[in-house]
Amino acid sequence: MNILITSGGTSEKIDQVRSITNHSTGQLGKIISERFLEAGFSVTLVTTPTAVQPKEHPHLRRIFIKNVAELQTVLEKETPTHQVLIHAMAISDYSPIYMSGFQAVKEASNLEHFLHQSNKESKISSEEDYQVLFLKKNPKLISLVKTWNPDIRLIGFKLLVGVAQDQLLAVARASLEKNQAEMIVANDLSEIQDGKHRAYLVTKDATQIAETKLDIAQKIYHHIRNKG
Amino acid sequence: MNILITSGGTSEKIDQVRSITNHSTGQLGKIISERFLEAGFSVTLVTTPTAVQPKEHPHLRRIFIKNVAELQTVLEKETPTHQVLIHAMAISDYSPIYMSGFQAVKEASNLEHFLHQSNKESKISSEEDYQVLFLKKNPKLISLVKTWNPDIRLIGFKLLVGVAQDQLLAVARASLEKNQAEMIVANDLSEIQDGKHRAYLVTKDATQIAETKLDIAQKIYHHIRNKG
Repeated sequence: MNILITSGGTSEKIDQVRSITNHSTGQLGKIISERFLEAGFSVTLVTTPTAVQPKEHPHLRRIFIKNVAELQTVLEKETPTHQVLIHAMAISDYSPIYMSGFQAVKEASNLEHFLHQSNKESKISSEEDYQVLFLKKNPKLISLVKTWNPDIRLIGFKLLVGVAQDQLLAVARASLEKNQAEMIVANDLSEIQDGKHRAYLVTKDATQIAETKLDIAQKIYHHIRNKG
Repeated sequence: MNILITSGGTSEKIDQVRSITNHSTGQLGKIISERFLEAGFSVTLVTTPTAVQPKEHPHLRRIFIKNVAELQTVLEKETPTHQVLIHAMAISDYSPIYMSGFQAVKEASNLEHFLHQSNKESKISSEEDYQVLFLKKNPKLISLVKTWNPDIRLIGFKLLVGVAQDQLLAVARASLEKNQAEMIVANDLSEIQDGKHRAYLVTKDATQIAETKLDIAQKIYHHIRNKG
């Protein structure tokens, strides 16, 4: 069985020297990868240059990406040859379109105009006291996975910050259905610290609780192996 | 002689899961640190969690920061006890103030209003097709260094992208004067690749050219030792 895992966080360029980055150490993806490799599976890990990397292994293949567009290209190509996708990467919701000084935005008669511009300069000048960055929504890749491979077993992740547990579980269940996922691993940033990582592993029939990254990896592994 | 070196790139939070990051591997700061340590100097390295780190050394002290505000606090405290500052860090020119959906910005009668708001939510919602991020200029720390220690020997850096050599040198000379620096190391991102790193080391009297990071470190080291 070929396991496709995404790990780390994507970055979207503002210009040649600046990016908007989604925080993720890649630690969880590393541990999940190592768990499946240990058990004899082949793992393709789609990861970023700054993410923590698993130990080398003869059945580990790594593909490096930086942004959502690159990730989309790789997933479209790889999903058809894998039976499982564990999609743990922290993905940028928005990408920069155009950065402008505040004054020009304030004086513009039509702000839509800025949504169709792009910065010509490689390093945007930094003279004005205020700047305005226009951003556009990225495609939700998790919702495209089944169009590339309807049979792939999909495990998605949902990270929220400082919400009530029932809200987190409701969001996970909605994502489960919408994306035809087999499991959504829901977690709250406020419950990830000092070696602890609480997560709710939500499937159609049940919700398991994990307390550490290793525990999350074990429970995903057992789910995939036992329900396969 | 105590050498203060900054290295890596700062990040400014948009919310709990996203930041704007200035790219810098920290490789140059690492090599400069190692050069001075080898020669018996004490080095304080102000660096970031994701930057490449020098080899451990009994005369190396490291201080980790993430954003410009933290960097300012550290530099204000450390400059008075150091004789040299080599300020190689890539520093965010702007910090996020407020992120809004595009529609609200389009409908607002006064955009100044957004410069005085802040996001209450820990993870900004991602429903709208377009978003607008308002940013404010950060203080230029290099221009404050001499107010904290008028006697410190200051070596600054200037990175531009895809400009003509004479423009790069003109910008470096202006920075030299404005910031009362002893040297500005001017470089162009388009001349940094595949192990090469061209830089112009601009002082009041002369301009030296370096072709690699090690070469830059050597030339800075010789300048500090010989002109000390």
